[in-house]
This record gives sequence, structure tokens and C-alpha cells, in this order.
Amino acid sequence: MSQVTEFNAYREKMNERILATKNKTIQKIYNVDHTTYQDGALPARTKELLGLVASMVLRCDDCIRYHIQECYRLGVTSEELYEVFGIANLVGGTIVIPHTRRAIEFWDALHAEEND
Amino acid sequence: MSQVTEFNAYREKMNERILATKNKTIQKIYNVDHTTYQDGALPARTKELLGLVASMVLRCDDCIRYHIQECYRLGVTSEELYEVFGIANLVGGTIVIPHTRRAIEFWDALHAEEND
Amino acid sequence: MSQVTEFNAYREKMNERILATKNKTIQKIYNVDHTTYQDGALPARTKELLGLVASMVLRCDDCIRYHIQECYRLGVTSEELYEVFGIANLVGGTIVIPHTRRAIEFWDALHAEEND
Amino acid sequence: MSQVTEFNAYREKMNERILATKNKTIQKIYNVDHTTYQDGALPARTKELLGLVASMVLRCDDCIRYHIQECYRLGVTSEELYEVFGIANLVGGTIVIPHTRRAIEFWDALHAEEND
Amino acid sequence: MSQVTEFNAYREKMNERILATKNKTIQKIYNVDHTTYQDGALPARTKELLGLVASMVLRCDDCIRYHIQECYRLGVTSEELYEVFGIANLVGGTIVIPHTRRAIEFWDALHAEEND
Amino acid sequence: MSQVTEFNAYREKMNERILATKNKTIQKIYNVDHTTYQDGALPARTKELLGLVASMVLRCDDCIRYHIQECYRLGVTSEELYEVFGIANLVGGTIVIPHTRRAIEFWDALHAEEND
Repeated sequence: MSQVTEFNAYREKMNERILATKNKTIQKIYNVDHTTYQDGALPARTKELLGLVASMVLRCDDCIRYHIQECYRLGVTSEELYEVFGIANLVGGTIVIPHTRRAIEFWDALHAEEND
Repeated sequence: MSQVTEFNAYREKMNERILATKNKTIQKIYNVDHTTYQDGALPARTKELLGLVASMVLRCDDCIRYHIQECYRLGVTSEELYEVFGIANLVGGTIVIPHTRRAIEFWDALHAEEND
Repeated sequence: MSQVTEFNAYREKMNERILATKNKTIQKIYNVDHTTYQDGALPARTKELLGLVASMVLRCDDCIRYHIQECYRLGVTSEELYEVFGIANLVGGTIVIPHTRRAIEFWDALHAEEND
Repeated sequence: MSQVTEFNAYREKMNERILATKNKTIQKIYNVDHTTYQDGALPARTKELLGLVASMVLRCDDCIRYHIQECYRLGVTSEELYEVFGIANLVGGTIVIPHTRRAIEFWDALHAEEND
Repeated sequence: MSQVTEFNAYREKMNERILATKNKTIQKIYNVDHTTYQDGALPARTKELLGLVASMVLRCDDCIRYHIQECYRLGVTSEELYEVFGIANLVGGTIVIPHTRRAIEFWDALHAEEND
Repeated sequence: MSQVTEFNAYREKMNERILATKNKTIQKIYNVDHTTYQDGALPARTKELLGLVASMVLRCDDCIRYHIQECYRLGVTSEELYEVFGIANLVGGTIVIPHTRRAIEFWDALHAEEND
């Protein structure tokens, strides 16, 4: 199983488990999370770049993977993505480098999967 | 080996290794760590909830697992735990979601282990 | 004007300004923020302690002040509060000390105000 | 002196002081900082939004003010800015709220200054 | 009153207030804090540099001021200090710049005070 | 394959991949990263200790491993390393403990590898 498939399978399974708790706070946060990234004054594409750079400087690999996947789905180019990586490494420092290594590996995995 | 057993085995082995360094600072921190979570003005149970929410917003999976295990041992209910998760996700943001996925998986693993 | 009055005046004024943006995401977050700290499986009092310790390890002075005020309103005792400070300083490290200095100053200001 | 003028005066004075140290690492970081936010695969405008959201989730008021000023200079609208605030509060949590209060105050100060 | 005097006066007053709580956890942390920075396998001087860089990447202005003062007392040179600043800005990112501005201002204030 | 070999192989492979993006910001950051840790007013050895403690309080396992390896190469003793661990755990809090477990495991792996 590719790392992309594995990531999505675990993510989906556990999100269901979390929502099954019926905790109101978490349900609402998931709901806001969904609507926030939709087209508004800023297009969904820009919002995913914003979600990505925020995830990178906060150094959450799973959040990075999620937003990279959304960027991929919305047609972000490699050059655009690398510039987001650049800003994340600049603002967040070299502490972001290891996360950038895993981020680009996931980006490559998304392309590899498509070509299978 | 279940993730619970694996977590505890590694934790115990490496804690012994760390204490074997005889570094005074670390020894004292381990000592304070032990006494702080005992019954005081606040009951141990509430203190473990506090340790858990702190670990969640700081996003340390191993610390989360440790405190979840202590919560389990002290009879915290699932509903109570989910409310701690809710506060952690609210204060700490969606960046806490991936840690919540792994947290609830560990909580379920603790219950599964008991039923073996 | 006491630091308590000043804190609340600025907080209230700017919260109104923020909500006047009518940004859906922020409106919903403010709404969840309100409901989350109400009585549930855990009493409101415990939830405020959780919000406080989370704010302390994330080192946000204004969030600390807000939750300290709520703790005060809900009858949390000084001994209970100090134990929350203890856990925050233990989990979050000595980097939390300066925030603890300002936290206890605010706690004392709340009591001083009452006695005016 | 308005908060905008004060912010820029201090920032400029101390940046000069820092560069006068002739520390090579810092000089290079300042240099990269300058070139990174220029038009590339992504326009400068989008890059400033990225710098802003990164500063917000990392909760650095001065960095937020700097990027808000750049956003203002590049014609970002209030609705666009509020959506960046929304994403920052969602990803970073309610711990970002106090920084959002000061951010919007600075945004308003920029407009007020123009109208003087 | 210079910013150095003001910093130390508030710090001392509130540390006394905190210790007056007699909270065991906090008392012990203050105690470990004192002994850790003394000469050991590493000299006190190097340990203060370590405390400083840790405070910078965690972005705590008061902690930075405290360690800068200790560095000053132990004869750290400006060139050495600037190299610590360099590493902090590199590892921690440009988000550390505003803290570096205030750090060098405090370093200069320490020298100015001496020359009074 | 030992964890040391595995760590270095992945690190090297992905660093090459990252530099192949030819993103100017990232290239420059990698370049500054290389020059910053060389002998200057502070010896390279002290700088690696600084890089290590910064990585520990920011809790980045890969960064910790990298700097531990450099410390090992530059002849840092175990007692010196443990004192860095002590400061990191003190300043950063018990949240650093799990990273200390993995850090000392890597330090031991470096020694084991040498003796093979």
C-alpha cells in the first residue's frame, strides 16, 4: 500500500471514530474546518496554500500531507508549492527542514500514484 | 505486541537509561514529575486531565499516551475524555486533530487490552 | 484604571470589532468557544482549569488572564490555582515562569478589585 | 505618534542596529527574507498572505504587523484579510484570538493613518 | 528607571510572590533552575549560552533578558552573543527577529548602565 | 540497517531532492545552515551544543539526531551531552522527555556503530 493510500485510510477511519464520539465541540470544529477552505474572497486554491504554510511552520506532518493533497487536487504547480516550502522554512527556520523532506516525498508519491 | 505494551516497554527501558546518566537536573525533574500528579488541593484525577490537555495542545503523542493511560487507570470516563479532547482542539486548533486520532486509538487500545 | 478593567475593556471592544467582520469561520469559532466551557460530563470549573493550563503551556498572557478570571468567578481557590501553575511549569518548562509571574499578578488584582 | 509610526520607527532603528553587528548568518537571513517575498511562481501578494498566516499561527505580533502592512501596501482587501484571520484561528486555535484583536487594531490604524 | 532596573525589580518581586505560594512543584523547579546553570561538565558560561538560545527559539522575551544578563555577568563578548543570535534566527526562523531586536536593545542597555 | 545509517540515507536522499527544486530561498537557507556552525567567535563544538538544545526545546527528533551526530563527531563527551539534555528538559519542560528518550537511544546507537 502506498503512503498516500495508507495516510488516507487511517485518516478516514479515525475521523469516523472521532465523530462517533458525538462530542459537540469536535463536531463543530470539523464542520468549520470543512467550510473554511471553500471559495470566498480568496479562492480555495490560495486557502489551501495558507493551510499548508500554517501546517509547516507548526510542524504537523499529517496536516502538511492533507493540505499537499488538496493542493495537488486543485492544480497547484510544483514551483508554487516549492515557494510555499521556501516561506515556511524562512519564517519557521531550519527546524522545518525535516518536515519539508517528508512533504516533498508525499508530493512525489501523489504524482507517482497518478502514473501507476 | 499491542501498541500499549510496546509504548510502555520502550518508555520504561529508556527512562531507566536516562536515569542511569545520573544527571542531577534530569533526576530532579523526574522526581518532581512523580510528586506533582498526586492528590493535593486538586485530586490526582483532575491533574491527569490537566496533564493530558497540556500534552495535547503542545502536541506530544507520547505524553498524550502516558496521561491517557493514567486517566484510564483513575477511572476517567469516555465522555470526560472527549471533553478534554474538545478543549484541546478548540484552544490548540485543528493542528491538534492528527494527535486526537492517535489519542483515541490509544484509548481504544487500552480498553481492548482489558478485554483480552 | 486597574489592569483587570483595562484588560476587559480592550478585550470586549476588539471582540466586537472582530465579530463585526462577519467572517463565518471566526463567528463559528467564537460560538464554539462559548459553548465548550459550559457544564457537561466535566463541570465548567474543571474546564476552566483545563483552558488555563492549555493557555499557560502555549504561553498566551491574554488567554491566561481570561481563564484566571473565569476561575475566580467560579470559586477556584488559590491552592487549586497554584497547582495548575505547578503543572503548567512542569510540563511547559521554565519558559512558563514569566507568564506565571504575570498570571499571579492578575489573580491578585482580581482580589484587590473586589476589596475596593 | 500612531502605533503604525512607532512600530516602524523601532523596527527600522533596531534592524540597523542588528545589521551593524555584521554577523554573517543574520545578514544572510535578512537578505533571503527580502528576496523571498518578491513575485515568483506565486505573486508577492499571495506570499504576504502566506507570511501573515504563518506569523499568526506562530503568534508573533510584530511579524503579524509587518505582514499586515505589506498586505495593505499591496492592496489586499479587508474581506481577504479576514479570511486569512479565519484560517489562522482555525488551524492555530483560540490561542490566536488575542493576536487577532491586535492584528485588526493595526489594520484599522493603517486605514486611519491614510485618512489623516 | 532603566529597562534593566525595571526588569529586575518586577522579576524579583514576583518571584518572591510565587515562592510565597509554597507550591511544592514550583519551589522544586526554581531550585533545579538555580543549580542547573552552575559549572559542571560544561562551564556556567556555556550553559547560559544554551539557556539563551533555548529562550530565543521558544521566543520568551523575559527569559532572553534574564540569560543575556547572566551572559553579560559572565563576560560573554558581543561577537559570541551575536553568534548565538545567528543560530537562534537560523533554527527558529525569521519569527525570532523581533525578539532579537529586543534582545540587542537589552544587551546595549546593560552596557549603557555600566557606563552611567 | 542501523537507525544511524537509515537516518543518514534518508536525510541525504531527500536533501538532494529538495535542492533539485532549485528554489532560491531553500538553497540559501541550506547554504547559511552550513556556514553558521563553523568555528567563529564560538567554536564549532559549542555551536553544535547550541543547535542541539534549540532542536530539543523545539522538539524536532530529526534535528536532534543531526546535531547529536555532529556532537559525536566533534568529541562531545556523554557528561556534556547529558547537561545539554538537562537544560533542554528544564527550559522546555517534561514535554521534552520523550524526545530525550529517542535522543539518548541515537547517542547510544552512534557508539554501538563505532564498535561494530
